[in-house]
Amino acid sequence: MRELKRRDFIKLGSVLAASAGMVNAFPLTSPTPMSKPSQSKSIDFVYDGLHLSPKEYTEILFKLADEGKIKPDYYSNGGIVEELEDKLAKWLGKESAVFFPTGTLANQVALRQLAGTNKRVIVQAESHIYNDSGDCCQTLSGLNLIPLGADSPTFTLDDVKEVIHKTESGRVKSPVGVISIESPVRREMDRSFGFDRIKEISAYACNAGIKLHMDGARLFAEAAHTNRRPSQYAEHFDTVYTSLYKCFNAVSGAVLAGTKEFTKDLFHVRRMFGGGMPNVWPFAAVALQYVDNFIDEYHSAWKIAEGFFILLEQNLDFKIEQYEDGTHIVNLVVKNTDPKKLVDKLRSRDITVMNPRDGKIPIKINPSLNFTSAEELAGIFTDAAL
Amino acid sequence: MRELKRRDFIKLGSVLAASAGMVNAFPLTSPTPMSKPSQSKSIDFVYDGLHLSPKEYTEILFKLADEGKIKPDYYSNGGIVEELEDKLAKWLGKESAVFFPTGTLANQVALRQLAGTNKRVIVQAESHIYNDSGDCCQTLSGLNLIPLGADSPTFTLDDVKEVIHKTESGRVKSPVGVISIESPVRREMDRSFGFDRIKEISAYACNAGIKLHMDGARLFAEAAHTNRRPSQYAEHFDTVYTSLYKCFNAVSGAVLAGTKEFTKDLFHVRRMFGGGMPNVWPFAAVALQYVDNFIDEYHSAWKIAEGFFILLEQNLDFKIEQYEDGTHIVNLVVKNTDPKKLVDKLRSRDITVMNPRDGKIPIKINPSLNFTSAEELAGIFTDAAL
Amino acid sequence: MRELKRRDFIKLGSVLAASAGMVNAFPLTSPTPMSKPSQSKSIDFVYDGLHLSPKEYTEILFKLADEGKIKPDYYSNGGIVEELEDKLAKWLGKESAVFFPTGTLANQVALRQLAGTNKRVIVQAESHIYNDSGDCCQTLSGLNLIPLGADSPTFTLDDVKEVIHKTESGRVKSPVGVISIESPVRREMDRSFGFDRIKEISAYACNAGIKLHMDGARLFAEAAHTNRRPSQYAEHFDTVYTSLYKCFNAVSGAVLAGTKEFTKDLFHVRRMFGGGMPNVWPFAAVALQYVDNFIDEYHSAWKIAEGFFILLEQNLDFKIEQYEDGTHIVNLVVKNTDPKKLVDKLRSRDITVMNPRDGKIPIKINPSLNFTSAEELAGIFTDAAL
Amino acid sequence: MRELKRRDFIKLGSVLAASAGMVNAFPLTSPTPMSKPSQSKSIDFVYDGLHLSPKEYTEILFKLADEGKIKPDYYSNGGIVEELEDKLAKWLGKESAVFFPTGTLANQVALRQLAGTNKRVIVQAESHIYNDSGDCCQTLSGLNLIPLGADSPTFTLDDVKEVIHKTESGRVKSPVGVISIESPVRREMDRSFGFDRIKEISAYACNAGIKLHMDGARLFAEAAHTNRRPSQYAEHFDTVYTSLYKCFNAVSGAVLAGTKEFTKDLFHVRRMFGGGMPNVWPFAAVALQYVDNFIDEYHSAWKIAEGFFILLEQNLDFKIEQYEDGTHIVNLVVKNTDPKKLVDKLRSRDITVMNPRDGKIPIKINPSLNFTSAEELAGIFTDAAL
Repeated sequence: MRELKRRDFIKLGSVLAASAGMVNAFPLTSPTPMSKPSQSKSIDFVYDGLHLSPKEYTEILFKLADEGKIKPDYYSNGGIVEELEDKLAKWLGKESAVFFPTGTLANQVALRQLAGTNKRVIVQAESHIYNDSGDCCQTLSGLNLIPLGADSPTFTLDDVKEVIHKTESGRVKSPVGVISIESPVRREMDRSFGFDRIKEISAYACNAGIKLHMDGARLFAEAAHTNRRPSQYAEHFDTVYTSLYKCFNAVSGAVLAGTKEFTKDLFHVRRMFGGGMPNVWPFAAVALQYVDNFIDEYHSAWKIAEGFFILLEQNLDFKIEQYEDGTHIVNLVVKNTDPKKLVDKLRSRDITVMNPRDGKIPIKINPSLNFTSAEELAGIFTDAAL
Repeated sequence: MRELKRRDFIKLGSVLAASAGMVNAFPLTSPTPMSKPSQSKSIDFVYDGLHLSPKEYTEILFKLADEGKIKPDYYSNGGIVEELEDKLAKWLGKESAVFFPTGTLANQVALRQLAGTNKRVIVQAESHIYNDSGDCCQTLSGLNLIPLGADSPTFTLDDVKEVIHKTESGRVKSPVGVISIESPVRREMDRSFGFDRIKEISAYACNAGIKLHMDGARLFAEAAHTNRRPSQYAEHFDTVYTSLYKCFNAVSGAVLAGTKEFTKDLFHVRRMFGGGMPNVWPFAAVALQYVDNFIDEYHSAWKIAEGFFILLEQNLDFKIEQYEDGTHIVNLVVKNTDPKKLVDKLRSRDITVMNPRDGKIPIKINPSLNFTSAEELAGIFTDAAL
Repeated sequence: MRELKRRDFIKLGSVLAASAGMVNAFPLTSPTPMSKPSQSKSIDFVYDGLHLSPKEYTEILFKLADEGKIKPDYYSNGGIVEELEDKLAKWLGKESAVFFPTGTLANQVALRQLAGTNKRVIVQAESHIYNDSGDCCQTLSGLNLIPLGADSPTFTLDDVKEVIHKTESGRVKSPVGVISIESPVRREMDRSFGFDRIKEISAYACNAGIKLHMDGARLFAEAAHTNRRPSQYAEHFDTVYTSLYKCFNAVSGAVLAGTKEFTKDLFHVRRMFGGGMPNVWPFAAVALQYVDNFIDEYHSAWKIAEGFFILLEQNLDFKIEQYEDGTHIVNLVVKNTDPKKLVDKLRSRDITVMNPRDGKIPIKINPSLNFTSAEELAGIFTDAAL
Repeated sequence: MRELKRRDFIKLGSVLAASAGMVNAFPLTSPTPMSKPSQSKSIDFVYDGLHLSPKEYTEILFKLADEGKIKPDYYSNGGIVEELEDKLAKWLGKESAVFFPTGTLANQVALRQLAGTNKRVIVQAESHIYNDSGDCCQTLSGLNLIPLGADSPTFTLDDVKEVIHKTESGRVKSPVGVISIESPVRREMDRSFGFDRIKEISAYACNAGIKLHMDGARLFAEAAHTNRRPSQYAEHFDTVYTSLYKCFNAVSGAVLAGTKEFTKDLFHVRRMFGGGMPNVWPFAAVALQYVDNFIDEYHSAWKIAEGFFILLEQNLDFKIEQYEDGTHIVNLVVKNTDPKKLVDKLRSRDITVMNPRDGKIPIKINPSLNFTSAEELAGIFTDAAL
């Protein structure tokens, strides 16, 4: 593996951004380059971002503090947290954004506030909020989440219309208040809900007085992959949550973006839910370093990935399958080798990969690929399959 | 229309019960026959019971009071209300039953209490509780109702297993606590969920530590129709709600039956929900008159209906369609006549029928048919279709 | 006891109303006099109204039905229920009123709807809603009821201001949305909250954007007692609940009155809570007979009571204590006799009285006194004390 | 100000612990001394701990990471978070402890879980949970918080008994499930609830089947001040929350301690509430450095404070007032000087103090005093008052 350092990686990103010149519609202040990272990062195909070690993470934090760049927040308000909120609001094309400790809470608060007394909320049957949030929306906010599109990353406008119709036939008025859309969909291999479908459903909902929320935990990855700006997605929603943990390397945290009207008193709700932590600058300060460059870094990593796929498929034992509606995950199919064994061998060489699923190995492309090259990766995989 | 009086009707029922000798597994005290009803009842194909007018209703009440048969309840406890609860508990084969003002509340309280902290509840997508209860379970009790079996009166054990499986894969533990089954299903033409399917799902749930609730608003109609005792259904459930309003002619009211352990403190919950009315003997006293005879009355009415169907189909313009899983509703198909016009003509002759649905006229068989004969009915319908 | 029949009673009431000419600000249709009640009513000092037996109750109902005066409601809407709602709305000076099965539910729904997202509600520490409603407002509607005025029927404007002030000092915004006032106060011997205090607090709340609800279960008794119209109380509140069961002799039922805007969709909420009973005309039809005459009947009864008190106190062993802020309850103090024994003797003569409390016998004045005279009562009590 | 460095401070603490020999009942591993803090800390009389700057904070974190001492947690479970949980469980004498992002959530979850279906919870009228938590317990968990002891840090066993008695008189059963006690009480100048009173109430509650929760955000400060072990308080409670932010210098975080049975599934509830952050080692790692030494450090600081008070009162313009039930806050009364001006002058000399309250300046003693001496402090204050 050649000696690509984090320093180079940051540089690479900057070059790409300059040449591409298309993603950054508004002027972005350049993040501080992190010099002298203590350790080079190992490659992984699992995370959305760089998965920094505590040492890497605290080194960044200390450096920022030492340079006087961390203005502490007060109970999650103001200081560097506000800087981050403002930056993400801009990227999402929203007036305002508010920090939340987790996406679980950001999602619930969005749905709760948007719904008001119209407590039916349409969600994907395979969404995180329907399956992996402990039914918080139902238990704590009394919402009725209506699941659509079983075993699929998406649902259709017709599905929505059918629910609206049925809702109107009920003996007691209980209208649909919100439609929530997660994209990409974690439980469906990070496949996309579909940009055109979002537009279509948003137009319908807008007309019907129904609010729209986006669970965009990994929205930046989908946007990067589809060559759209995150704000192009976000403009079809009243509120958008995105994670600080997934693409932006903070150890925790999320933001929820919307109008100023929507966010102005949200810290009270956050505090009521027990999410008003005294200080969250250790999350915000790190995320702030990575937001502006993520898309460029992803583009660069994807180029390396494409080269890697081509080289890999020259070996007839390897095949890369991409989903038509996929984003950063592809499947690696191997012949003449036990996928589980291949996975173990790769791990023994510090290449982190997911467990095989239906005989295929899911491969998630992320900026950590910028520390290597297509050739090197192809070599390691071919070698490991022997 | 021959002069069949309510008096005869009661008699008829008794005769049938004696001959059939099968439904009444335990000795039933005979209800007071209501002599000299002020008016003979008009025939209808819409209600589950007799749909008494205020005059008929208050005449019964006054007579019972005059005879000293109404021992008032105290805040819905004791007196004639307890008599009714005890009678229905017996019919349902449960230790105990508790009055509730509505089925909406009985259902919610059952699910709420059975669920405890396991707040996921499997329901039919077309059930009353999912569509017509104002999302009370979600809004007031924080339950997550999971709808299965869209556009169908039923769901399968495999559907249940899939939910259980998915629930286990969630990132936050939120187990299924209850399965709720409505049968027959109002939104699906009172078709049955399926007795064998109930048994199968009940056995599975029991084994998995999941509780079972039955929304048996019209359970007695289904039981009568399938020649089973209500308790044969009820034994597969922890709790069963049945309506006083549907089959038993009370103007309002419901009971929820279960173990003594389950019901012993239920009046506190009832009162918290605002269902602890000071007196409900005007409901209980009337229902009490009809519980024991409903099944016999239904059998008698169904015999008349069968005769009526045969006579009607001798006219090739009429066809009766029965659902394979149907109970008391059949569809009347008419050729060479506008169904809407037929409906209007029947109504002008005091025969109440439902509006046509997909070009067919739904016909619900109920004890009011005991006031007429197959021949008379066939005559009226044939006449009206000219 | 002279042979005063219910018929006379109704007449008496009319005469009094004509002579008084002050309570009925708007023309009232006279209720149907109930001829030939099967039994004369025994005197009681316990209930707010007449405490009709099932026989008396059903006789009234049957008569009304027989005369075609009961237009049934449909799921608690329309028909004679609407008639009653309209009549009570007028008496309360509100645009509209809606039936509820119980005061517990009417109170909760009022507070829930008025509060919206301002979930702090000021209540009396000794109020029914704080002590006797199973914490429904907290458990089902997530309200925070703040109790003021321990061991007293009232609280002061200063108490209110202190709560408002403290609320503003909280770290998380959670404003007071509603002030609820019960008057008279059941747990405090039906003593009044105080009319002037109501006006003062209402003016303050109005100015502060805080809503006001009245639990006026027995409002008509207090209004009659203080020679005010119920609407004079009601005008200081956004919503008012009054009972059909207490003063108006229905076996169950309540109404909640307010603006049309407030009540227009309330039947959906009522139904969600399980309070949407298919028919409640057996409650509404009876209450409707008594609403217009209650105040006159009370005045007449109170005159008899006053005569009774004077006669009684001529015997130095009896003393009547009235609360300064009292309404229809006074305390009877007896010397040289065990109060418990006096109570037992009275009961053996069909005079229902409450159990002694702190050595005194609470005596509640109600229209049943119109069936007797001051002299007769004094005779019975003096006799019983020997 | 003499050159006392953090290094010295740690040493001081150890010496004191050795000499005192009473607080540490079980062997404690010594925390890593932090060498070469970049900056000496300024003195403050406001915080409970050291109020570290981002630079100081991140320096500690980086050092720990660099030494390989930070084993990351996985969604707030395991790793260094578990180390901290175990350590605090020991200090509190409980089987187990669980991390929570805030005390607000820890308190709510404790009350919610302990209450079960007995949703009345007795709290102090001046408690944080009643005033400063956005009514989360009422709004999200449907609890009824009953406030006792207005304008006081405490309430009595008789107060409790009166509530229990009144609860039993309610028409609907809604028992008291939990008593919550905050000590020391933030809104009452950190005065203590009273150790003997805790024991008395705990004994009663235990006997009555009522659970007990302690809001011990600053419990370690009270325990240090009263020369008791935190576990001596904790043994009288089922659950205890303590803050990582107050005494232990983490920027955020809390733990909730109780039996293993109680805590074993708590991370599910934590996650449902949106408190399951992916990584919280930046909080846990720092708190872990300070837990074992806090009490010794406090003792040392208090000695300096006592010296300071004596010196100060030699000047007749100064008077120190201690509350009989006080803990780490005393009031400084100044004559012949405007307290506000004194405060401003002290602040201009980097001595952080609170704003005057009723003409007195509250002074909170904390370990930052270990960086100075009684003489130095007295000098600064005397000087500032000129």
